[in-house]
Amino acid sequence: MDPRHAVLFEPIDIGPKTLPNRFYQVPHASGFGVERPRTQAAFRAIKAEGGWGGVCVDYTSFSLESEEAPAVSALFWDDADAKALGLSAEAIHAHGGLAGIELFHGGAHSENGQSRAIRVAPTQHRSLPIWGGLTKEMDAGDISRIQREWVDAARRARDVGFDIVYLYGAHGYLLSQFFSTHLNQRTDAYGGSLENRGRFWLETLESVRDAVGADCAIATRIPVNGRDGLPGIETDDMLELIRMASPLVDLFDVNVGVWPEDSGTSRYYPEGHERPWTDRVREATDKPVVGVGRYTSADLMAEIVRTRALDIIGAARPAIADPFLPTKIREGRLDEVRECTGSNVCIAREEAYNQVACIQNATAGEEFRRGWHPERFTKALNADRAVLVVGAGPAGMECTVVLGKRGFDAVHLVDAATEIGGRMRWTRQLPTLGDWGRVTDYRAIQLDKLDNVEVITGRHLSVADVLDYGAQIVVVATGSTWRGDGVQPEHADIDGADASLAQVMTPEQVMLEGKRPATGSVVVYDTDGYYVGPGIAEQLAGEGYDVHLVTSFGIVSPLSDESLEGDMLRQHLHDQGITAHRDVVVTAVDQSGVGGTDEFGRPWSLSCTGVVLVTQQRSDDELYRALLADPTGLEEAGIEAVYAIGDAIAPRPISESVFDGHRLAREIDGDDPMRPLPYLRERIAL
Amino acid sequence: MDPRHAVLFEPIDIGPKTLPNRFYQVPHASGFGVERPRTQAAFRAIKAEGGWGGVCVDYTSFSLESEEAPAVSALFWDDADAKALGLSAEAIHAHGGLAGIELFHGGAHSENGQSRAIRVAPTQHRSLPIWGGLTKEMDAGDISRIQREWVDAARRARDVGFDIVYLYGAHGYLLSQFFSTHLNQRTDAYGGSLENRGRFWLETLESVRDAVGADCAIATRIPVNGRDGLPGIETDDMLELIRMASPLVDLFDVNVGVWPEDSGTSRYYPEGHERPWTDRVREATDKPVVGVGRYTSADLMAEIVRTRALDIIGAARPAIADPFLPTKIREGRLDEVRECTGSNVCIAREEAYNQVACIQNATAGEEFRRGWHPERFTKALNADRAVLVVGAGPAGMECTVVLGKRGFDAVHLVDAATEIGGRMRWTRQLPTLGDWGRVTDYRAIQLDKLDNVEVITGRHLSVADVLDYGAQIVVVATGSTWRGDGVQPEHADIDGADASLAQVMTPEQVMLEGKRPATGSVVVYDTDGYYVGPGIAEQLAGEGYDVHLVTSFGIVSPLSDESLEGDMLRQHLHDQGITAHRDVVVTAVDQSGVGGTDEFGRPWSLSCTGVVLVTQQRSDDELYRALLADPTGLEEAGIEAVYAIGDAIAPRPISESVFDGHRLAREIDGDDPMRPLPYLRERIAL
Repeated sequence: MDPRHAVLFEPIDIGPKTLPNRFYQVPHASGFGVERPRTQAAFRAIKAEGGWGGVCVDYTSFSLESEEAPAVSALFWDDADAKALGLSAEAIHAHGGLAGIELFHGGAHSENGQSRAIRVAPTQHRSLPIWGGLTKEMDAGDISRIQREWVDAARRARDVGFDIVYLYGAHGYLLSQFFSTHLNQRTDAYGGSLENRGRFWLETLESVRDAVGADCAIATRIPVNGRDGLPGIETDDMLELIRMASPLVDLFDVNVGVWPEDSGTSRYYPEGHERPWTDRVREATDKPVVGVGRYTSADLMAEIVRTRALDIIGAARPAIADPFLPTKIREGRLDEVRECTGSNVCIAREEAYNQVACIQNATAGEEFRRGWHPERFTKALNADRAVLVVGAGPAGMECTVVLGKRGFDAVHLVDAATEIGGRMRWTRQLPTLGDWGRVTDYRAIQLDKLDNVEVITGRHLSVADVLDYGAQIVVVATGSTWRGDGVQPEHADIDGADASLAQVMTPEQVMLEGKRPATGSVVVYDTDGYYVGPGIAEQLAGEGYDVHLVTSFGIVSPLSDESLEGDMLRQHLHDQGITAHRDVVVTAVDQSGVGGTDEFGRPWSLSCTGVVLVTQQRSDDELYRALLADPTGLEEAGIEAVYAIGDAIAPRPISESVFDGHRLAREIDGDDPMRPLPYLRERIAL
Repeated sequence: MDPRHAVLFEPIDIGPKTLPNRFYQVPHASGFGVERPRTQAAFRAIKAEGGWGGVCVDYTSFSLESEEAPAVSALFWDDADAKALGLSAEAIHAHGGLAGIELFHGGAHSENGQSRAIRVAPTQHRSLPIWGGLTKEMDAGDISRIQREWVDAARRARDVGFDIVYLYGAHGYLLSQFFSTHLNQRTDAYGGSLENRGRFWLETLESVRDAVGADCAIATRIPVNGRDGLPGIETDDMLELIRMASPLVDLFDVNVGVWPEDSGTSRYYPEGHERPWTDRVREATDKPVVGVGRYTSADLMAEIVRTRALDIIGAARPAIADPFLPTKIREGRLDEVRECTGSNVCIAREEAYNQVACIQNATAGEEFRRGWHPERFTKALNADRAVLVVGAGPAGMECTVVLGKRGFDAVHLVDAATEIGGRMRWTRQLPTLGDWGRVTDYRAIQLDKLDNVEVITGRHLSVADVLDYGAQIVVVATGSTWRGDGVQPEHADIDGADASLAQVMTPEQVMLEGKRPATGSVVVYDTDGYYVGPGIAEQLAGEGYDVHLVTSFGIVSPLSDESLEGDMLRQHLHDQGITAHRDVVVTAVDQSGVGGTDEFGRPWSLSCTGVVLVTQQRSDDELYRALLADPTGLEEAGIEAVYAIGDAIAPRPISESVFDGHRLAREIDGDDPMRPLPYLRERIAL
């Protein structure tokens, strides 16, 4: 270990407990809840095993009237829930970590779509246009009832082994609703002055502390203003609340209290972007403070702890990307840290599918159901076979790394380009997407360290080359190409679209070949809905083109909303002078411009000097198909198996290509590696 | 029974099984899947109890690569799943019904967000911009594997007691993807000619029939074109496929094969709207045919069966609204049928929350977890108390009906208006929303039939009146009012908004008081996002105003997308000449017009002669608060308890107000009726 980092491994007392080091996985959703208690436990335990001194489970509801369906928060409504979530505490303890549970009440932000319970709030208030409607203004009975429920839940948490019990006050949930002058317009003892608005929080802290403070550390998650501020909460007021709460609190967990600035993506927020705000908490308390910042730099983390800006380094995303980050720092293996890209794929997939996943760490969320460990690999039963992986994009790189770690005698990764990375070569060049390059960088270092792996670039392999190569197993990972022929999802093909023409371009032509339209107006037509269209638009705007981003969707880049960056992205494009045209289906392209229909089917057209088609991709599967079509040739060449992974089999997001390459390598010694093995599912008791 | 309806109660053979009558609950999602097997079983069993001769469970996936998270389809991946879903077959049999299971493979329409499996399709094709990305083009091995999996699933279905086994081919799933010239561009034996495109369907039918045809009826759900057509499928081609399939099929389940025309809402589709297309199936087969049409009219159903347009009346929504519809027809109790309103609240809540619910039937989805039966009620323990319900809106009407059925000696329902209905009085007057009036109509008949209930209209009750009334229990159901003061969700109050001014209006002022702006342009400002804003806009457009619908949302009426009517609604508004302005936050109103900001925060304004504020509601809870504030008065008056339900406690959608009124009446003899009792949850085995 670098001695400068030793400060990160000093224990610290938090109330009656001692955190073994300064690494702390803050509470965050996984999608597992108590519906998949073993999955939750395994997902959390791996962090403890990897060296995180404190590990928290999902945000946890203790009340029928605070329920998040279809999103999953953990439920802690009764003893059966407690037993289920207790598995996590037990599993975290097994690796020497402290287990934390973030008890919360959503108030006006609850969905209650499952429970159909009436939402409650300090003041009747509508926060979101959801089917749940408006709230009930809490009466005195509601206030004391919720405080009782909080205490009961804290006792249950203690009884099943949790070390750290939270009052979750950030992200606009009930405690902050009470503290906000905007959301709390009560005229009783719980509204008005700062003392009154803080009363619910402080009273509840006191009650919970009285009940379990001797056994558990009492934590509270507090929001501070960031760049955008919090509705109705001033920073100085919050610091005053922290001063008042300090005697009751063993650990302050601080963040900029609203999404998307909390969990800010790397596109718009650098590492540590919260510091101007979160560092101010030290003014108000000498109690231990944990905070987040998408920290992956050991030097920066050490400096933060040394200066006591924070006492403890919190992480959600970096701990998903690399559960073994603390261990790697402790062992001085900084180059092996699988750094978070800040893409928010974890959040997007957790929100969309209740299944957290990671662009960097294919094992995230797969610990229980597939039995995958991020750092341990079993020796393959067929490790004596020579393996050729064709194509060094995300799937090919990941597959090769895992094959290398599974002890194959020889694995060759061959790519036609002069550098590895596949689509990442140009994706990382798109404006704002530089940190996504970590997908390549981490793997490049891993590939370099594996003695049984050879990487060969600048070599195109024909079918004959592959047959002659001498491999027994061939994995085709040749990726995909954006179509330049006008095929688009759902709608008819675009007349006149042909990327061999001067005025029609694909993303790869723009980014890898430098193809450009004549000076003037350019249309980027986006039916993909994620980052490529906006990225190309921004690239061209930066070069001086008058860019029109035309999309078939009702909003620009709807998928960016899932990664919490849609609003920023749209504002950012606007600030670059890019004009958006929504709800347009392009049906024709010619030298004068593009034509199509608007949302009501009326004719629509725009003059331009060129159009970039961000419509859809096509697998580059010629090699795979040719090999499969020649069983005799394969046999004569001694090739026992040919597999395809990643975009070569089905173009997908980067995270899913990485997963696919990983999965094939994990299961390559099974009966039918192209078919995923069934995974463990947690079942209802019958 | 009316003898004209007798034809609906004739048994009919479907393959080796006999359907006891002509009522059939077609497969539809509930959100319960195998994650809540007892909930699923109870939800289905109630239909069998109510007289539906055939009852199907959720659409059911048999393959890891066809998975719908976060939506819930039933899973049938292994024997444990079969055992869980078998509870439904058993429960349906207990009431003499046949149990059906709709086995499906989604192909390109699968999400696979949980499984992370690669989606497969006849041709690599992107159907939706989802995180799942593009598909793998199925090879010969995939085709035969999926057919084997289908057969295995059919065997499992038979073994756990299902009588009717489906090949689900509608709604754009895998079988139709093969049959579509648009989605299937294969050049092998499974693409090209009609025979080739139908081969996968027919081969699979044959295999499933060979495996279980002796024991089970073989059904297939087939799509026909409707108003909008199916991508790449011609009606004549489909009829030809039906001819070819006919020898292999015991039951054709036909619908217009795409949403939202299937499951069309009453706003845009009348009862039986599919008939011009579905009736044509008879040209191609003499096998039994079941079809849907939101049928609630016994005369129409009988005519359809008598003429053999269909042999069997299918239903999803009408069976949710009234599980006892067949029994009520059989017993000649037509006036007691709880008619489906066609609001699609069932679908919206199932999609949004994985919890089917109903605007008409508060017990839908509550059969297992709360033990509620739509037609049976226990005598209340405090039935000797006199109950006064103040306010005859959805919550008050429903609560009164249930209190009446629970055997209270005397229940009075009092409303200040001259007719019952509450908000329904004007909601049903909004253009296209006439069928929603069934919420009132059903309850009016029920109230009339209950001897222990008295309905009094045109009588405003003051606090003193209530204290004097002589009731021991008071239920306040005084509803809510749309705010005219410029308070809106999320954003700051609107300057100058005041509905006492001539140019500023609320929805109730427009619909109940006839308040209108001066001739010219009118702005309807909608931060609610559902039906009220568009409804008012359409009303005024019909009167000749130049209507501008200004909304803070990125699309007009986002909640209408959840009920599958957003696209139609927007087109419909456009066709009425209504101009939409999206992403606008109004911050000021004056005599010249409205002002605010656009999506990028730039100033925005519009001249108009008046503005209707559809911003948010406010509970009319003065009576409730005044009663609670006077415990002495209550005691002196002999009032033991005061409760509030519906919008009076928290403004919510109609379905949730009905639910709330129902719940209070069910639990009014408990310890704390204002707090919902915990419900049963199905748990993971630990």
